[in-house]
Amino acid sequence: MKDEEAARHSARAASTNSGRSEFEFIAEIRRRVSMSGSSSSLVTGIGDDAAVLRQTTGRDTVVSTDLLIEGIDFQQQSTEPVLLGHKALAVSLSDIAAMGARPRWSLISLGVPEDIWESSFCDEFYDGLIKLADAYDIKLIGGDISRTPQQIVIDSIAMGECATGKPVLRSGAKPGDRIFVTGSLGGAAAGLRLIERGARFKKAENDEDSNLVQELVLRHLKPEPRVGWGVVIGEEQLASAMIDISDGLSSDLHHLCEESHVGAIVRSGDIPVDERVVEICGRRRLDPLMLALHGGEDFELLFAVPPDKVAQLPHKVDGVQLTEIGELRAANEAIRISEGSRVWDLQPEGWKHFE
Amino acid sequence: MKDEEAARHSARAASTNSGRSEFEFIAEIRRRVSMSGSSSSLVTGIGDDAAVLRQTTGRDTVVSTDLLIEGIDFQQQSTEPVLLGHKALAVSLSDIAAMGARPRWSLISLGVPEDIWESSFCDEFYDGLIKLADAYDIKLIGGDISRTPQQIVIDSIAMGECATGKPVLRSGAKPGDRIFVTGSLGGAAAGLRLIERGARFKKAENDEDSNLVQELVLRHLKPEPRVGWGVVIGEEQLASAMIDISDGLSSDLHHLCEESHVGAIVRSGDIPVDERVVEICGRRRLDPLMLALHGGEDFELLFAVPPDKVAQLPHKVDGVQLTEIGELRAANEAIRISEGSRVWDLQPEGWKHFE
Repeated sequence: MKDEEAARHSARAASTNSGRSEFEFIAEIRRRVSMSGSSSSLVTGIGDDAAVLRQTTGRDTVVSTDLLIEGIDFQQQSTEPVLLGHKALAVSLSDIAAMGARPRWSLISLGVPEDIWESSFCDEFYDGLIKLADAYDIKLIGGDISRTPQQIVIDSIAMGECATGKPVLRSGAKPGDRIFVTGSLGGAAAGLRLIERGARFKKAENDEDSNLVQELVLRHLKPEPRVGWGVVIGEEQLASAMIDISDGLSSDLHHLCEESHVGAIVRSGDIPVDERVVEICGRRRLDPLMLALHGGEDFELLFAVPPDKVAQLPHKVDGVQLTEIGELRAANEAIRISEGSRVWDLQPEGWKHFE
Repeated sequence: MKDEEAARHSARAASTNSGRSEFEFIAEIRRRVSMSGSSSSLVTGIGDDAAVLRQTTGRDTVVSTDLLIEGIDFQQQSTEPVLLGHKALAVSLSDIAAMGARPRWSLISLGVPEDIWESSFCDEFYDGLIKLADAYDIKLIGGDISRTPQQIVIDSIAMGECATGKPVLRSGAKPGDRIFVTGSLGGAAAGLRLIERGARFKKAENDEDSNLVQELVLRHLKPEPRVGWGVVIGEEQLASAMIDISDGLSSDLHHLCEESHVGAIVRSGDIPVDERVVEICGRRRLDPLMLALHGGEDFELLFAVPPDKVAQLPHKVDGVQLTEIGELRAANEAIRISEGSRVWDLQPEGWKHFE
């Protein structure tokens, strides 16, 4: 979705659920999605006790779930319902992409308090969600709606497919494999810091860097899942292991190394730090490299490629670049980062819900 | 799970998450489930970005999701973590059963506040969940864990399988089909009313009917999904349409009739009202028939059977009886209920989250 369009969406006079039961709302969503998205393999979608998908020999089904909680994963006052709908789906599509699979179906469990139900929140939330779903030919096939005492809670379930035996797991990487990352890092974390300091989506700013701020804020509020990269990596079997960067590069590299029983050396100078982050950091006492290493929520893909397959990698997919940032080593070499001749242990300092 | 056993579970000195991150907790759950449950078709379970299942020609995948919110769907002070783990899975298994499918996999998204995380809640919750999963050979293959500001939130995703083209939908029933219901109705609603009036699980009561109270309280807190009935109905293709009774017989019959474009006549005298409800109602000014019609959460199966298939129905499955309660009619005859010669419209008065 274009950002201008997102703004229009959230600015329009949306319909509300005032006086509508959840059954009426679900019937409305069902009508909206009945004509859209990938319907091959879909036997039954919204409107029954469960959705039904046809199985085919030669395919694996990939399924993932992500919980988004108001007050923890997002704040109502710093996002828009349409952006939240986008993000709820995007984070799950990112998981499916990280398996080297093609996302195809979505289920959404949505819990909202009474006053949010009565507002236009739900309609706008599904506007954002369905728009992103349509962009990747993903069909909304089910979910649940519940009342909550206070916070909004969202559970986003995504399902996808890949060729039998071809999912790209976190395990499977070997010492000597090169480490690659898509896109750029640190933007989402910088956006979050800016929001915490008062920046808002589309709020007019007098600052000369207001466009930069807007872009970084959107990098946090409206992540773009690397669906194209996931499909290419999976279909061409280019990676020995893959994960998406949701907790942060340092943490997610640890997850991958743990599952693959390998160590790693990352070259700090090669990390594709978001240029906008570098530009904005000086004035705001933020360290771009720290944001790129530990920031999280960039939803880029991090993967290992055997040396003999490196030449087969495309340079860009859907306009998103690829960067080699290091190499996997034997497990006993631990996970380290180098800056010139200086080398130190890379601690997993990304996001944790509980310490 | 035996109820005595559930009590022991919740009474034992369970381990807590104090000082554990969610990654350590997930690793522990992964170890616990790695040896249990149905693993054929499972390529990758807990521990990657997504779970992976192998597809096979000749099967359909059935997937359902149920959101349970503290303060709305349950109260912490009137249940036990081990019962809540059981119920979270049970309600989703019921959805899969209502498709005539065999449940096989579960994903759980769990959000808890910090103090609950530090307690033994999560361990006990998974005790109850895994025990029920093992009973039906269901494998926990994934999920998500998040912190919440206050309430516990649970999203339970269940997946199952049936033969290609054989799911039993809500649509498909025809006028003339007989209406059947498994087990008995009203017990869960009576249990909820008793809880609202102060009854608690395993709390000593001086009342002469304390066993009765306990049984009804457990009917609400620890529902048994009709997995066996679902599989039999699905495999032998005995029903033209099916739904599980979660909102209440009146509401769920309306859902089935709407999807099948039929009307119905229910004989009130034939509704299998839970005998314990009849026994307890007199003393408590509750109407057993109203509880059975509109109460909800009994998680029995409601289905339509063409007249020529009625003779093929088993009388019991897993010890659970079957009762014929009425007949489907043309849509223009509406949905009605008869008591002797008196006939009136059956309004859908079951549970709604939003009016």
